[in-house]
Amino acid sequence: MYACLCLVFLFFTSIAEATYYPPGGFHHLSSLRQIKKSSSKSKPELPFETRYFPQNLDHFSFKPESYKVFHQKYLINGSFWRKGGPIFVYTGNEGDIDWFASNTGFMSDIAPKFKALLVFIEHRFYGESTPLGKKSPKTAETLGYLNSQQALADYAILIRSLKQNLSSEASPVVVFGGSYGGMLAAWFRLKYPHITIGALASSAPILHFDNIVPLTSFYDAISQDFKDASVNCVKVIKRSWEELEAVSTMKTGLPELSKKFRTCKGLQSIYSARDWLMSAFVYTAMVNYATAANFMAPLPAYPVEQMCKIVDGFPRGSSNLDRAFAAASLYYNYSGSKKCFEMEQPTDDHGLDGWGWQACTEMVMPMSISNQSMFPPYDNDYEAFQDQCMGRYGVKPRPHWITTEFGGKRIETVLKRFGSNIIFSNGMQDPWSRGGVLKNISSSIVALVTKKGAHHADLRAATKDDPEWLKEQRMQEVTIIEQWITQYYKDLREEE
Amino acid sequence: MYACLCLVFLFFTSIAEATYYPPGGFHHLSSLRQIKKSSSKSKPELPFETRYFPQNLDHFSFKPESYKVFHQKYLINGSFWRKGGPIFVYTGNEGDIDWFASNTGFMSDIAPKFKALLVFIEHRFYGESTPLGKKSPKTAETLGYLNSQQALADYAILIRSLKQNLSSEASPVVVFGGSYGGMLAAWFRLKYPHITIGALASSAPILHFDNIVPLTSFYDAISQDFKDASVNCVKVIKRSWEELEAVSTMKTGLPELSKKFRTCKGLQSIYSARDWLMSAFVYTAMVNYATAANFMAPLPAYPVEQMCKIVDGFPRGSSNLDRAFAAASLYYNYSGSKKCFEMEQPTDDHGLDGWGWQACTEMVMPMSISNQSMFPPYDNDYEAFQDQCMGRYGVKPRPHWITTEFGGKRIETVLKRFGSNIIFSNGMQDPWSRGGVLKNISSSIVALVTKKGAHHADLRAATKDDPEWLKEQRMQEVTIIEQWITQYYKDLREEE
Repeated sequence: MYACLCLVFLFFTSIAEATYYPPGGFHHLSSLRQIKKSSSKSKPELPFETRYFPQNLDHFSFKPESYKVFHQKYLINGSFWRKGGPIFVYTGNEGDIDWFASNTGFMSDIAPKFKALLVFIEHRFYGESTPLGKKSPKTAETLGYLNSQQALADYAILIRSLKQNLSSEASPVVVFGGSYGGMLAAWFRLKYPHITIGALASSAPILHFDNIVPLTSFYDAISQDFKDASVNCVKVIKRSWEELEAVSTMKTGLPELSKKFRTCKGLQSIYSARDWLMSAFVYTAMVNYATAANFMAPLPAYPVEQMCKIVDGFPRGSSNLDRAFAAASLYYNYSGSKKCFEMEQPTDDHGLDGWGWQACTEMVMPMSISNQSMFPPYDNDYEAFQDQCMGRYGVKPRPHWITTEFGGKRIETVLKRFGSNIIFSNGMQDPWSRGGVLKNISSSIVALVTKKGAHHADLRAATKDDPEWLKEQRMQEVTIIEQWITQYYKDLREEE
Repeated sequence: MYACLCLVFLFFTSIAEATYYPPGGFHHLSSLRQIKKSSSKSKPELPFETRYFPQNLDHFSFKPESYKVFHQKYLINGSFWRKGGPIFVYTGNEGDIDWFASNTGFMSDIAPKFKALLVFIEHRFYGESTPLGKKSPKTAETLGYLNSQQALADYAILIRSLKQNLSSEASPVVVFGGSYGGMLAAWFRLKYPHITIGALASSAPILHFDNIVPLTSFYDAISQDFKDASVNCVKVIKRSWEELEAVSTMKTGLPELSKKFRTCKGLQSIYSARDWLMSAFVYTAMVNYATAANFMAPLPAYPVEQMCKIVDGFPRGSSNLDRAFAAASLYYNYSGSKKCFEMEQPTDDHGLDGWGWQACTEMVMPMSISNQSMFPPYDNDYEAFQDQCMGRYGVKPRPHWITTEFGGKRIETVLKRFGSNIIFSNGMQDPWSRGGVLKNISSSIVALVTKKGAHHADLRAATKDDPEWLKEQRMQEVTIIEQWITQYYKDLREEE
């Protein structure tokens, strides 16, 4: 998530221009490049201490190379904590942990109330926690140990060691995570209940695998967001693809398109422009927050509505493509400072490659685009996807592995009688919500769903402009977490 | 379990005769050699079909070699089954699956009642399921992927595929296992609740790790078994060790001991004789069944009692060592057909090496022997153990890994509010019971404890001589499993 249609998508279109791959499983993070730029300005507000923890490269085999040690970065803030008190752990996802820490203000906001220790652990192979160095070639040999089970084992080992070092082994641990980090938080509670007493899994699409939810749900959800803002807006965007296709039939089409789209360099392919547009709509739906925010990019409150206002504000008879371009520019250039757009970015920015690898191995999330959506229709082509992964990394995806290892199919029936203490929170503006748990499963595995929420909005720091429903959602989360902790201490006293 | 003091123990004493290593984590299976001999006579009574399933070598990494395929053996019997009905799976442990199938008659006994499909899956790297061939050298390079997590993942993948091939994906799966197989069954329910609805974990010492239970509990339990049979018997055995030690101070001690102990070849060390005696007492306590049985060796009902009768039956003033030898002979030579004993067996029987590897990596079960026991006292020496593992396989044990991955510490508190549907059955005659779950944890994670039961007695086929308490225990198990299955089908109907 925090998808990069841009980068990864480009990768595909550059391989096979005629073939059209929607982001699908690749639909993640990689616009970290952009993100890093903006986030570097806003370092975490809280004074985190940065530490490094030695981890074995492979927890699930005992070959000599399994014992190779790498240093996992984590951030820690003990200023609210008193010994024996709770530990709040963020289970880092596919990127630099500083960035997640600075975008998960909720944990810092509630830490004083709980007198909690704050810990943000970076995911192996991202940020500074790269076992083989950032510059090693990105192959199956070097990336082989980048996956979710190894990451969860890292978290289990680090947390256990940390508690021992703090002489606070009885401290209850609550895990938090958003997006892929939310998946990890939920799975961590399911697989390591002896290490964590509960998980807040925000915008965690754990059902986005193996055809559990319809393949078209992601793009349908985005289209719904835009439709809710303006039916005309959806019509315009839908028509713009045909206008774009028409460009390729014209002799001077590409140079004219480059000019119209203000690209820094002349476009090589209309598909670069299409991907650029699609990315803008996808990401804006994801971060369709109720307040101005700067997560993927600086944007005003409810940016989808703003985009549609731009589309609808054009005079009658204007070109659909012009309108789509203007709308997308809100996402890429809200501040207005950009003179031109880099639509055909280089694809060799290896620091961002991690999710591409995960999507090609375990995180296989196939997607299609229906005729009803505002995007160009697409039927998922698994064979082509597999071939691309083979070509790129030399490995075959394991499309059924995540549901074999973590479940997902018939999750209500399975977890109705197994497990406890998980909050699945979702905002329906976020297209990933369609792959999330949207109904209560049991009395303690619950779903908190907000109609107007976006991608893990609840994990963001409170602001003075927050709407009531967001405050209410966070209050519910605090109440539930408080119950877990109270229960835990009660059990602990009874045990003694 | 099915321990081999003999083989593995010998391994250690041959390295460092002066140092005394009780079997500890090594205390397993390896007398399979013996076992195989006897079990080869008695093939499974039920007509199982033997099949082989292709498995990836490594489920938790995506390196090119992870995709190497080996063929996992499993046995299947569908004669009682009707489509949609339950599937009973035995989660194979450290040995040939035919042997476990023939010693787990309980599953076959109850299959007709449940109209259940029977499946016995062999554990990777044992029996015929050896990824790199039986004759490959036993090093960390070749054994690296032999561990419990990989085995559980094998089971998950095989079961899922089997159900799909049978077009019976809604069939409830119940897993069964004894000893290490029981640990695997319990862990499988905890880690893969989406694949199995419940587990019968018989004689599963999941708490025998990381100092959860006292290090002396295993040998203390054996001593208690013998004490319950005869206080004098324990005194005699305890005194015999001194007499044995005295042999080493005598010039002609070893040849005389060899004669007394009827060894096939002259003894090189008194410690071989000591290990031989200890093994007999340990294994006999484990299989102190209420009926005559042939699991580790052919033995009469309540063999500990029989041993003590032999000890106590000697005339006053007889040598303690003579008595101990006669008692141990019951274990090794109940039929009376052996003319001499092989006490210093070769240690290079690589087919049995698997557990030694597991004990040196993840299955670290340190043990001490207290002064109060009937055995020679011993203080666990972890450093020495680690050095031996390094010397033998070139790897360092991970002594905290099992409790990090599967839990165990404060298990009552953790599982009181997490998980469901596990039966932990234990017989208190079995020394491994002290590392098992002996108290109910929740309404559906329950302990069935029998005072007179031995090592997974409940999993054995019913015989006409079974005592009431054993029939009662099995009936309770059937009742509980029936509840799981009924509940499952009810949930399934409600879901539809």
